[in-house]
Amino acid sequence: MAVKTHTININTKGNADILDITDQVSRVVAESGLENGVITLFTPSSTSGLTTIEYESGCINDLRRLFDEIIDPGRHYAHNARWGDGNGHSHVRAALLGASFSVPFVNHRLTLGTWQQIIFVDFDNRQRRRELVVQVIGE
Amino acid sequence: MAVKTHTININTKGNADILDITDQVSRVVAESGLENGVITLFTPSSTSGLTTIEYESGCINDLRRLFDEIIDPGRHYAHNARWGDGNGHSHVRAALLGASFSVPFVNHRLTLGTWQQIIFVDFDNRQRRRELVVQVIGE
Amino acid sequence: MAVKTHTININTKGNADILDITDQVSRVVAESGLENGVITLFTPSSTSGLTTIEYESGCINDLRRLFDEIIDPGRHYAHNARWGDGNGHSHVRAALLGASFSVPFVNHRLTLGTWQQIIFVDFDNRQRRRELVVQVIGE
Repeated sequence: MAVKTHTININTKGNADILDITDQVSRVVAESGLENGVITLFTPSSTSGLTTIEYESGCINDLRRLFDEIIDPGRHYAHNARWGDGNGHSHVRAALLGASFSVPFVNHRLTLGTWQQIIFVDFDNRQRRRELVVQVIGE
Repeated sequence: MAVKTHTININTKGNADILDITDQVSRVVAESGLENGVITLFTPSSTSGLTTIEYESGCINDLRRLFDEIIDPGRHYAHNARWGDGNGHSHVRAALLGASFSVPFVNHRLTLGTWQQIIFVDFDNRQRRRELVVQVIGE
Repeated sequence: MAVKTHTININTKGNADILDITDQVSRVVAESGLENGVITLFTPSSTSGLTTIEYESGCINDLRRLFDEIIDPGRHYAHNARWGDGNGHSHVRAALLGASFSVPFVNHRLTLGTWQQIIFVDFDNRQRRRELVVQVIGE
């Protein structure tokens, strides 16, 4: 058993920019040399999140609409009233979606479904450079 | 420390069918022979998800109502417009709920609460046969 | 590699009481003596959940408003109709937010962002004493 921790760098446009990071995560697993185990993905940020989806423009737009509807950026936010940075909705969205995500791998490959990709969602209200943590534990 | 990966097969009715999979997951932990560690549950699918709940018909119906309200299957979805398979809402629901779930175990037993069960939610719009990944890491 | 499981005790006010538990979790990691690995946080309860947020009163209030809006405590719940305990909304909220959360640690420190704290949210409708599971796996 071993633990190996890497980072992945991503440039995003913000505003619910949704990026498919499956290839980058798969590469970390492959290069770890570990055969079986789990990867823990983590975004060290309070305005972004991680999940999986079928990465095609329809699903992406449908997911964006959900967040626009239930956590509308055009409303009043107590965070904005205090800090004036205009990203109150980004914080609430990120807390709901979650900053961490785990996927088992078997025979050096993630156990993802055929139509399932790992996505990073940047909810901040401006473009950002992000550094994600990808930790591999296995043997 | 060891890693052991198993699968659980489930037949679902789709349409937010909610199944209690606690016994099946507990059996994987017991049969692993490992005493302490963590299980990672993962659904290799983009139209289903995992979480915990008190598994009784009231909570189940209340959870279903939430998804019907915030991600209404009767609306337009960009995914449906592109692919015509009618399960656009299923993808959005699954991305929100999440495809993975982790639970520590101690002395061969999951650390679940008394009124807490692990559930698999199949959001697809038809019956499905599902294969979940259950990975045990521990010693 | 080793597994070490601890518990954290918390007194909450219920009713979406949101507590910053970062220091308590960090202490478990530091005292484990393990250098690199992952912590799995788990609440053995069906009326509470875990996530991260920027812990300041604006974000906290904005997150509470989201739950009040999409899972309104003042409505009818099938759970309440069956059991009469008035916390039907608490169960739905907890199932949506999720009972487990994982964070990698490196050099004895959690990989959290500067403005990111781990929060425990007690959705129950009364004050509670809670015992969370914190499991450290690493080397």
